[in-house]
Amino acid sequence: MTYAVAVARWEPNAGQRLASAALTLFAERGYDATTVNDISERAGLTKSTFFRHCNDKREVLFLGQDGMTARLAEAVHASTPETPPADVLAAVLDAIGTFFPEEIRAAATMRATVVAAHAELRERELLKGAELSSAIENAVRKQGRGETAARFLSALGLLALDITYHRWIADPDERSYRDHAAETLDELVAQASELPGPADTTRTTSGRSPG
Amino acid sequence: MTYAVAVARWEPNAGQRLASAALTLFAERGYDATTVNDISERAGLTKSTFFRHCNDKREVLFLGQDGMTARLAEAVHASTPETPPADVLAAVLDAIGTFFPEEIRAAATMRATVVAAHAELRERELLKGAELSSAIENAVRKQGRGETAARFLSALGLLALDITYHRWIADPDERSYRDHAAETLDELVAQASELPGPADTTRTTSGRSPG
Repeated sequence: MTYAVAVARWEPNAGQRLASAALTLFAERGYDATTVNDISERAGLTKSTFFRHCNDKREVLFLGQDGMTARLAEAVHASTPETPPADVLAAVLDAIGTFFPEEIRAAATMRATVVAAHAELRERELLKGAELSSAIENAVRKQGRGETAARFLSALGLLALDITYHRWIADPDERSYRDHAAETLDELVAQASELPGPADTTRTTSGRSPG
Repeated sequence: MTYAVAVARWEPNAGQRLASAALTLFAERGYDATTVNDISERAGLTKSTFFRHCNDKREVLFLGQDGMTARLAEAVHASTPETPPADVLAAVLDAIGTFFPEEIRAAATMRATVVAAHAELRERELLKGAELSSAIENAVRKQGRGETAARFLSALGLLALDITYHRWIADPDERSYRDHAAETLDELVAQASELPGPADTTRTTSGRSPG
């Protein structure tokens, strides 16, 4: 859920050149066969510049992370404790949508293919997703909505971001990120509405047999 | 969300002895200062027996994982496509609750303290949580409830398990896992019911300003 390709919009300099060079090389010769040296050289930068931006080769695929985390927190803070929860989720999707304009769809797809092919990158992606989720959680917690609300909205927020992103990069009709975000949110709200309200159920996890 | 301590109930043998020895040593001298040799010796087993059960020192804290994953899938499969989603979540909590009887609460608390103190263990826990979530997701998907339902229920299921577990181990009143599970599920259902239904909203993620 975090994408070096997004750096293009926010750091039109070394970070973006490294991310772009890395994606091109990963596509050309594969992730494993590409070295930090190769990436730096292709970007026209030195290896020490690379290491000012990334700790290792994996990290070059996650350079957009900090910007996204900050943007998520801003988006939640711009809402109030009275803002309907679904609107908070919409704001979260809007905030991340700014990182995914149409012109980077091809790069985002390439990046997702590289990540999906490597266990260590999938793990890193999972960790970075957890960071995004924590950003939402902490921001909601500060609003005083309560601990369970913070956990619920951050879990659903991360899920909405993940579904939206993967639908967007895989869409043969090339509909926009925003279109997919709106559709995903509607579907998740529909799922939520199918969970029975606590008033009209005697459900308990004790002594029940499922089915 | 996966706990070597739970092995005690399902593998009353080498795995359990290793997990128990490891927890005791981690508490006595700390995680970093404990070696695989120390753990094997304390368990009265050889180092090669250790490595038949675990790939590395971290893994000894996650020996219960496979049993939990299988149990989760069984719990979902025991429901039908018509079972209300909240009852599926209740079945998920019931299934994992069998791994957490009262007599292992102290060991579970000790384990959680060790995991919380080490970044590499927190990462491993996150990955193992993702495996549990995938088990729910795949089982729900097989029921033909649809892709979004599979994603939604697995995300909420993992959240419910995580909240329940942490409330249980930290409860000064020592209420049971099942009590905490029932309470957590009620709270999450209440959160879900606060998301507006798709019929009565014109919400869209496009062009809205939050707040």
